[in-house]
Amino acid sequence: MAEGKKVGGAGLRGQVAGKTALSTVGKSGSGLTYRGYDVKDLAENCEFEEVAHLILKGELPTQDQLATYKAKLKSLRGLPDALKTVLEQIPKDAHPMDVMRTGCSMLGNLETETDFSQQEDATDRLLAAFPSIICYWYRFSHDGVKIDPGTDDDSIGAHFLHLLRGEKPNELHERVMNVSLILYAEHEFNASTFTARVCASTLSDLHSCVTGAIGSLRGPLHGGANEAAMDMIEKFSDADNAEKEMLGMLERKEKIMGFGHAIYTESDPRNAIIKQWSEKLANDVGDTVLYPVSVRCEEVMWREKKLFCNADFFHASAYHFMGIPTKLFTPIFVISRLTGWAAHVFEQRADNRIIRPSAEYTGPELRKVTPIAERS
Amino acid sequence: MAEGKKVGGAGLRGQVAGKTALSTVGKSGSGLTYRGYDVKDLAENCEFEEVAHLILKGELPTQDQLATYKAKLKSLRGLPDALKTVLEQIPKDAHPMDVMRTGCSMLGNLETETDFSQQEDATDRLLAAFPSIICYWYRFSHDGVKIDPGTDDDSIGAHFLHLLRGEKPNELHERVMNVSLILYAEHEFNASTFTARVCASTLSDLHSCVTGAIGSLRGPLHGGANEAAMDMIEKFSDADNAEKEMLGMLERKEKIMGFGHAIYTESDPRNAIIKQWSEKLANDVGDTVLYPVSVRCEEVMWREKKLFCNADFFHASAYHFMGIPTKLFTPIFVISRLTGWAAHVFEQRADNRIIRPSAEYTGPELRKVTPIAERS
Repeated sequence: MAEGKKVGGAGLRGQVAGKTALSTVGKSGSGLTYRGYDVKDLAENCEFEEVAHLILKGELPTQDQLATYKAKLKSLRGLPDALKTVLEQIPKDAHPMDVMRTGCSMLGNLETETDFSQQEDATDRLLAAFPSIICYWYRFSHDGVKIDPGTDDDSIGAHFLHLLRGEKPNELHERVMNVSLILYAEHEFNASTFTARVCASTLSDLHSCVTGAIGSLRGPLHGGANEAAMDMIEKFSDADNAEKEMLGMLERKEKIMGFGHAIYTESDPRNAIIKQWSEKLANDVGDTVLYPVSVRCEEVMWREKKLFCNADFFHASAYHFMGIPTKLFTPIFVISRLTGWAAHVFEQRADNRIIRPSAEYTGPELRKVTPIAERS
Repeated sequence: MAEGKKVGGAGLRGQVAGKTALSTVGKSGSGLTYRGYDVKDLAENCEFEEVAHLILKGELPTQDQLATYKAKLKSLRGLPDALKTVLEQIPKDAHPMDVMRTGCSMLGNLETETDFSQQEDATDRLLAAFPSIICYWYRFSHDGVKIDPGTDDDSIGAHFLHLLRGEKPNELHERVMNVSLILYAEHEFNASTFTARVCASTLSDLHSCVTGAIGSLRGPLHGGANEAAMDMIEKFSDADNAEKEMLGMLERKEKIMGFGHAIYTESDPRNAIIKQWSEKLANDVGDTVLYPVSVRCEEVMWREKKLFCNADFFHASAYHFMGIPTKLFTPIFVISRLTGWAAHVFEQRADNRIIRPSAEYTGPELRKVTPIAERS
């Protein structure tokens, strides 16, 4: 049998593992595009549902298409009783990504995708239901309240904030949710998306692919950097204190989350966008600590290490200003990235070969089983 | 930014995606080894728990180590009430692999792996609990019975058969379960194992890795071939009828499951082993149809297509002779392969780089967002 080719680096870095028409990362002219559109252009001019439509269905919607799509999503926000019962079994101290993973997996039992012709409907259902799932669990386990997950909010972002806080969000918060969900929607063959594609390559169902992707996004090297950034910046009392503490962390070679990127080398195009919205929110709430602290962290990391803020860093303060508990940051990432995951699953299915790489063997040579009585 | 290297074929076939000391597939001298031992040698001379110990802990156990390990596994068979409640919410017509995926994910909420030092204990827990999970759901949804998932059976295979059928299995059945679980335990970088490794590379928890792997094994191109083989052979009335029907299927170019393999080209070393046990079981139950039908299918496929039986084909009749419902065949695969998945997770964690390949972009060139009112 042929021996596998050796790769240059670990982690398949720089190895082409398939084709995609969904996004480019770090190509000249734009740091990030979705189906040819610069993410900055989309974040400035679109709602998240327009971008979800673009990613999942191929093109930005017309006014009519958008209205139809939003009405459909709005109709899919309810949760089956069996799923509510499951969410009520999950303790308050569970990892919220475990809740998302379990909620998605459970829905797959109740509304199984039995044919690939159902893939768009199944995705839209998850897109509408994910905010309901995380907020139902959160409000039940933390506040003892059984919320009605159906709201008439216009957007997914507003739906999420409404369920979480019990009242309709204002226009600024709804706009920031739109921007945030757009920024996180798609990023080529990152680890969670690649997980979804490997699963899809066995021709498994959509819920399996998405459940697997959630599990990968849960890892601290992938999702969760905005939570880690929040944990850090809220410890600093002001900008000068932040500078002093960060220099100490750098001196002690401690890991600082929210900076640098596996693919980008000079900047993350998403940072400038979320940073300006974090500043607007800071002004809105009258913050004089968290935003200046964040700006100083950015300056220190660039000056000392030539490391830039990635998409996650200013998301921390932005979410915090909107009253979102830190532990729910990564579940928002799930709500957004579902669009990219699902679109990659569709692509994989449309031109599939099972993903089955080889390994370099480093174990023992062929040996014989010793009878158990003679082993030592 | 550097462009990714092109690969020769799709699906990363023949590409080395990492190192492993766990198994070799299709190397000269043996078709399949686990840590250097030929799978045939292991299947003839070991119990499954010895092989699980080998795969998970590095070496075959001594008599004392095996006794300790089996006692530990025996003590971990019970299910928390919250998990039982979840399983009771899953309908009878759910896909049993969705049940396994959800059961594993739910256990991750209740018994979260919070530190990698817990990885062996968390794996042993899943190994002991998986038969309980699938049988608890199966018996509740199909028979309306809430079983007590703790039994004092000596082995995982006997525990499974006992819960499923309500009585201790005989020696022959327990032995075949041992052989079957050994044969399915590990197979290098297959799609489900690779899913587990991609997930592990984000430093996510064990339950996420295993949940994702279950989702990939669910796909009809990966697990489930033994179920498809069963669906086919039970339609044939005798060997001559099987030959006639198969020739028709080949003529119509219909897909026939249980033959050929992505890596093996001439034979699957696991086939001869399970085939002899299927024959023993056929003699034991006095079968005069299913085994002769299976043998004729093997002859026809080799004569007509030079396709050999893989591990799955004679598993179909073997499981059937033991009274296992067809829909539970793939969950048994999960119980076995968990050992390989988990050991690969341990390996990935011990020498990790996040798995993040590149993609070849085939989408539109950079374009500007058209205002929504002007889109058509």
